[in-house]
Amino acid sequence: MSNPVLIEVMRGQLVESRHRGAVAVCDADGNAALAIGDVTAPVFPRSAVKALQALPLIEQGAAERFGLGDEELALACASHSGEAAHVDAVERMLAKAGLLPSDLRCGVHWPIAQAAAAAVARCGAPSALHNNCSGKHAGFLCVARAIGVEPADYWQPEHPVQRAVRGVLEDFTGASLAETCCAIDGCSVPTWAVPLRNLAHGFAKFGTGRGVSAEWARAAMRLRQACAAAPWFVAGTGRFCTEVMQLFGQRVFVKTGAEGVYCAALPQQGLGIAVKCDDGSSRAAQAIMAAAIARFLPLDAGERAGLQRFVAPVQRNWNGFEVGQIRITEALR
Amino acid sequence: MSNPVLIEVMRGQLVESRHRGAVAVCDADGNAALAIGDVTAPVFPRSAVKALQALPLIEQGAAERFGLGDEELALACASHSGEAAHVDAVERMLAKAGLLPSDLRCGVHWPIAQAAAAAVARCGAPSALHNNCSGKHAGFLCVARAIGVEPADYWQPEHPVQRAVRGVLEDFTGASLAETCCAIDGCSVPTWAVPLRNLAHGFAKFGTGRGVSAEWARAAMRLRQACAAAPWFVAGTGRFCTEVMQLFGQRVFVKTGAEGVYCAALPQQGLGIAVKCDDGSSRAAQAIMAAAIARFLPLDAGERAGLQRFVAPVQRNWNGFEVGQIRITEALR
Repeated sequence: MSNPVLIEVMRGQLVESRHRGAVAVCDADGNAALAIGDVTAPVFPRSAVKALQALPLIEQGAAERFGLGDEELALACASHSGEAAHVDAVERMLAKAGLLPSDLRCGVHWPIAQAAAAAVARCGAPSALHNNCSGKHAGFLCVARAIGVEPADYWQPEHPVQRAVRGVLEDFTGASLAETCCAIDGCSVPTWAVPLRNLAHGFAKFGTGRGVSAEWARAAMRLRQACAAAPWFVAGTGRFCTEVMQLFGQRVFVKTGAEGVYCAALPQQGLGIAVKCDDGSSRAAQAIMAAAIARFLPLDAGERAGLQRFVAPVQRNWNGFEVGQIRITEALR
Repeated sequence: MSNPVLIEVMRGQLVESRHRGAVAVCDADGNAALAIGDVTAPVFPRSAVKALQALPLIEQGAAERFGLGDEELALACASHSGEAAHVDAVERMLAKAGLLPSDLRCGVHWPIAQAAAAAVARCGAPSALHNNCSGKHAGFLCVARAIGVEPADYWQPEHPVQRAVRGVLEDFTGASLAETCCAIDGCSVPTWAVPLRNLAHGFAKFGTGRGVSAEWARAAMRLRQACAAAPWFVAGTGRFCTEVMQLFGQRVFVKTGAEGVYCAALPQQGLGIAVKCDDGSSRAAQAIMAAAIARFLPLDAGERAGLQRFVAPVQRNWNGFEVGQIRITEALR
C-alpha cells in the first residue's frame, strides 16, 4: 500500500514534511467521481461519522420528544472545542431528557480551545461536558431515554443505542460491519472500519436522501439543516468545519475525525467526500478536504478566497513571522 | 522519494495510521552503522540540535563567566515543558548575565505540560519564559554578553551569535550550509537543513569529542555531563528525552526536534543517531529513536523494559481503556 503524497509542508524553500493519503468522491448510486490512492482499505472514520451516529436521535423521535433545537442537534454531530456555550448547551440538552452530566461516559479532557482551557483552569478543572464528544454522548443518552431502555451502558457495542448506530452505518455506507473491524474510539463507543469509497457513498446518501428510507432521508435533512443553522456548535471558534459551514450554509456539510479523517456532503452536487491521511495528520486531512471541496463545488471569487486559506495555509511561528506554507501536490490538483 | 513505513499505529486489530521515515547511524569518522531510507536529503533538525547550538556558550567562556551550572546548561539544550522550575531557572540564568525575560525574542506560548499550563492560567498568562526554547535563547543572550556584542538582535542570521552557531553546525556535521537551506525556526532563530547522515556524524563527534578541536570536545563533554546530571531540565515530567537520560545517564544523550526529528549520541559505542519521520510526527519519531537506541546500546533486562514502553507504547483513550498500540515494522527490526 503506497498512497500518493498529497500535501507538502514547506519551511522556507524546502519541503520539511510530506503527507500521503487517499480521497474518495462518490454519488448516491455509488459511482466514483474521484478516487485517489487506495479507497478500498478499511478506515476507522472516528468522529467524521458523528452525523450518521446522530441519525437515530431524529428517527427514534428523541429530538422531537425532548424539544431539541438546531444547537443541540449540531452538538450531537460535533467535535466541539469545549467553549462555554458548547458546555452549557450540552448540559441543557441532558436536562431536557432528565439526565445529568454524570451520566456521560465519554471521559474527561481539557477543552480543545486554548482560551476555553485557560478559563476552565481559572475556576476549576474540566468535566466530561468539556470532552469534544459530549454532545454526541448526550444524543446517545437521549435516544436511550426515548426508546425506554436503561441508559447506563449506552456506549457498549451491544447496547440497543449502539446496535441502532451500527445499523445506520451499514444502511448508509453499504459496508458490512464485521466484529473484526470494530475498535474502541477515544470516547469509548465502538468505531467501525469502513472503506473510504463506502464512506463517500454514505455521505452522498446523507446529503441527498437518495438510496435510504424516507425516515432516514428526513432525519439526515434535519441534521444538515441544524448544522448549517448552528455551525459554531459543530466545532468552535476558528475551526475548519465551523468556518466552512458558515461560508457555504447548506451547500456543504463537513466533519472532521481523529487520525486524519474527514467526511463531507455536497447536497447540490449529489456527492459525498471521504479523506484519510495515512499518518493521521489533521493539518493535512484538512487541506486535502478543502482542496476536494474547491474542486467539486462551484465557487464565486469570495468563496474561493475563503476556502483557499484552508487549501494552502500560511505557517507562522510564535512571533507571527511567516515561516512556510502547506501546499497540495499535483496528485490532488 | 519513498522512505519505508517504520511505524504502524494499531487500533484494535487494524493498522489505523502509518508513518514513514529515515534513520542514520554513524561513527565519528562518518562510517554508516545503519542507513534506512534516504539519509542524504536535507532535513531541518529544528530543536534536535540545540546541544550543538549551545556549544559556544561553553567555548566562548560564557558559562564559566556567569557561573552557569548543570541545570542552566541543560536548559540551554532543552525544549522544556514550561513547568515552574524550568521557568524559574531560565529567569535565574538571565539574571546571572544581567539580562531580563523581556530580552528574550523566542515568542510566547503556553507551557507544553498541561498541569503547568493550568497553573499559569490560574495566576495570569504565559510569557516568553514559558516558551520551550527560552533556555536556548537565554544561552544565546549569555554568549552575546560574553563576547561583548549588542544582544538585541541575537536571533538574526547575521548576528555574531548565530554566525558562531552556524560555524559549529558546519564543523560538527561537515555539511556546508548554503543560504538556500536556511529557514526560520518556531522560535525565530535560523534553522539550517542538513542531511540525516551528517546529523548522525555530528552527534557521533558530539558524543566522543573525536574529529573536532579540543575546545569543542571539552564543550561537548560539559554539555553531555550537564544533561545527564539534570535531565529533567532538558524536557520535563514524563517526557521521552528526560526519562531516557534518567535511565541511561551519560550512556545516552537524546534530544527531540519539531516535525519528527530526533538526534542522539551513544558515547560508549562511538555512535550518533539521527531520525526524521517524513510526516513530522513526534509519536513516530520517538518510537523510531527508542528502537534505534535499543538496537545499538547494550541493555540489561530492566533497561530493555524501560525503553520498550517507548518502542511500543500502549494507546489509551480518555477513560483509560487500552485501544491499541504503536509498533515498529520489520524495516526497523
